[in-house]
Amino acid sequence: MSGRPAPLSGFPEWLPADRIVEQHLLDRLRRTFELYGFASIETRAVEPLAQLLRKGEIDKEVYLLRRMQAEESEADAGLGLHFDLTVPFARYVVENSGKLVFPFRRYQIQKVWRGERPQDGRFREFTQADIDVVARGELPLHHDAELALVMADALGALPIPPVRIQINNRKVAEGFYRGVGLADPAAVLRAVDKLDKIGPVKVRALLVAYTGASGAQADACLELATITGTDASVAERVRALGVADPMLDEGLEELVAVLDAAAGHAPGVVAADLRIARGLDYYTGTVYETLLVGHEDLGSICSGGRYDNLAGTGDERYPGVGLSIGVSRLLSRLVGRGLLNASRAVPTCVLVAVAAEESRTACNTLAATLRRRGIATEVAPHADKFGKQIRYADRRGIPYVWFPGPADVGTDEVKDIRSGDQAPADPATWVPPEADLHPTVSGSD
Amino acid sequence: MSGRPAPLSGFPEWLPADRIVEQHLLDRLRRTFELYGFASIETRAVEPLAQLLRKGEIDKEVYLLRRMQAEESEADAGLGLHFDLTVPFARYVVENSGKLVFPFRRYQIQKVWRGERPQDGRFREFTQADIDVVARGELPLHHDAELALVMADALGALPIPPVRIQINNRKVAEGFYRGVGLADPAAVLRAVDKLDKIGPVKVRALLVAYTGASGAQADACLELATITGTDASVAERVRALGVADPMLDEGLEELVAVLDAAAGHAPGVVAADLRIARGLDYYTGTVYETLLVGHEDLGSICSGGRYDNLAGTGDERYPGVGLSIGVSRLLSRLVGRGLLNASRAVPTCVLVAVAAEESRTACNTLAATLRRRGIATEVAPHADKFGKQIRYADRRGIPYVWFPGPADVGTDEVKDIRSGDQAPADPATWVPPEADLHPTVSGSD
Repeated sequence: MSGRPAPLSGFPEWLPADRIVEQHLLDRLRRTFELYGFASIETRAVEPLAQLLRKGEIDKEVYLLRRMQAEESEADAGLGLHFDLTVPFARYVVENSGKLVFPFRRYQIQKVWRGERPQDGRFREFTQADIDVVARGELPLHHDAELALVMADALGALPIPPVRIQINNRKVAEGFYRGVGLADPAAVLRAVDKLDKIGPVKVRALLVAYTGASGAQADACLELATITGTDASVAERVRALGVADPMLDEGLEELVAVLDAAAGHAPGVVAADLRIARGLDYYTGTVYETLLVGHEDLGSICSGGRYDNLAGTGDERYPGVGLSIGVSRLLSRLVGRGLLNASRAVPTCVLVAVAAEESRTACNTLAATLRRRGIATEVAPHADKFGKQIRYADRRGIPYVWFPGPADVGTDEVKDIRSGDQAPADPATWVPPEADLHPTVSGSD
Repeated sequence: MSGRPAPLSGFPEWLPADRIVEQHLLDRLRRTFELYGFASIETRAVEPLAQLLRKGEIDKEVYLLRRMQAEESEADAGLGLHFDLTVPFARYVVENSGKLVFPFRRYQIQKVWRGERPQDGRFREFTQADIDVVARGELPLHHDAELALVMADALGALPIPPVRIQINNRKVAEGFYRGVGLADPAAVLRAVDKLDKIGPVKVRALLVAYTGASGAQADACLELATITGTDASVAERVRALGVADPMLDEGLEELVAVLDAAAGHAPGVVAADLRIARGLDYYTGTVYETLLVGHEDLGSICSGGRYDNLAGTGDERYPGVGLSIGVSRLLSRLVGRGLLNASRAVPTCVLVAVAAEESRTACNTLAATLRRRGIATEVAPHADKFGKQIRYADRRGIPYVWFPGPADVGTDEVKDIRSGDQAPADPATWVPPEADLHPTVSGSD
């Protein structure tokens, strides 16, 4: 390596202090997910291409693998990196269905890869944190409300701005489009999905040009997308548009039931917004998006939906519902704007100063005493002058420097290098203030 | 998905109970690493191919990436998945050197990929847990001893059999081979590296056939490889072979210094074994292997070494030393043989029984009370008969079922479904026994 390597666009890496922020977020998410009884799994990074392409739309973004020395006929030639955690999870459930207890609740925090053009908040490699519940046979609708509330709780436990969870139901959209007389609801959905990006005028033009909609039909679809609300009034406003369809009725019933269940437990957290479409083809009912208040331009930071047909074998159905937090998107925005900060870049609380190389073994023993008591401790790498060792601790962000006393006297002292206070201390009993024991993360708590 | 998908050979996935074991190991490793002041980083999964191939030997195992819809000329055509965490780390250090404080101590727990033929303990995707210290300029030798002791501590804190850390020094081998009169020490090292696989007779034949060694020279190399020990006597035995070379002297001095420093702090943990070669070309001094007692056939579960020349720019050197635990190898052996077990497959401690769907909101509120107190709680998915709900908890491994009392009476009861004991309980004060709060992992503690 002769020159300095440059970063790869779309493949973010964190410096240690920002990684501490990420770990803090992931630890808190894990804690919340486990409190709700979600078990952790990880799936392999690769899936057979046929598995990845089952839902079509995203195929252009898949990274394919090839072993450098592979023969043309190698079996692993047909592998690609997963682009989300839902498709691999559905495969895992079917593969292991005999060994799982249903409804199966799992969380999964892993990297995913998409060959997209990198831009603000969009990466080629990024971390997702997913929760899903999958049943064998039927999955009760109350899980659709439950998962939104779990995510509200999980996101609310992070030191980030408040969030707004918005839901819709695919059956409402699809039923309405059918009821209006449009033959290809999926095409309509794809056009409506572009509302945030291109606005209603252009979406209307798309609808007329590509879905066979008349101007009146397109206007009805756009009218539907303006409806929002937190209770049964949403359904009344849809019905007031005068469109009738059995699937629309079913969707409205589900939508209102999820709103009611969510409001019953945590009022104000979940609202309906009929503009929401979600691009992925596998959703069949409830769909979710989540906006970070004050950062709406970032797009959804936690999305998902109900998928009744993603997983199955010949004789069994495995309907599921899940949500996925875009951890990298969230983190890059908040860290990038200085809204999330770690108190220091190292886990270390104490640096043991080394007076001379001959005393390094004694310093190691002292450090071991502190570590046994849960205090993260390093021993200074060089027996420099103490002033230099203190500056080393300062540059690393280590708050305390420990000066071992001469072996036969035992008058150790510890210095808080921020205040300069120095006092006698015993490694068997000294404790730092709680706020100094581990790095802390500050944000919008 | 019409049929049941089959596992992909070489890409292991864990069921939830075994994933709990893995998380337990990783949590403990992280804790130990942080107690020693190692900061976490993660690097992207991909590196430019030129970066991956810098050390040559492993090139046949690299997975290359290609975007499915990529043009021939795409910039990301030259990317491959990393096959270890050392090469990416070295690149990260040079790329970010202006933002890091040296010596930089980091741990890194991530998946790596190698296109190898899968076999027992060898995977195509596996998890490594690495620690490294990298300096700018010079890295003191005491870090070579320190890192072995950190790993001894980290592995000793896991519920696994005891380990033996064995070290050698590249300078000893290379200096000795030169001193014997062999011109290509790297070729000799590669042959000696096969000792465990093919035995001394075949290695001797390789040495004679491919390195230009005479029978006597080959015998001397094999003789060197038989030497083991825990102190300066190792150097004496090497010198007794009558080979003189300045690099050999330097290597023996380093080897004994590392042994002495390790013994000074933790006698018996680290021993020299001059058979150890380590295949990777980038090691320049100390090399490490680690055997799991009773599972020596598994090969090394924690390996590494000193690399003085892996990272650098035109004007700066970044020598480092590090060790890497093969977490997947360790886990697959111990879990596969039933030597590591989780007490249950779910984080859940309590299942709240639901008497009727109308009471689900009240059950959710009760569950929230338990969760706020750190007790992982699920609400039953169906308002079945209580017997069926208890069987559901039993199948999932949830130890307690909570029966909410009628709203106006408030006489909740909780049942330990293992003993059948049932007693009145208040969600605001009830605590499970410590051993039931979270899943526990049992092994060879």
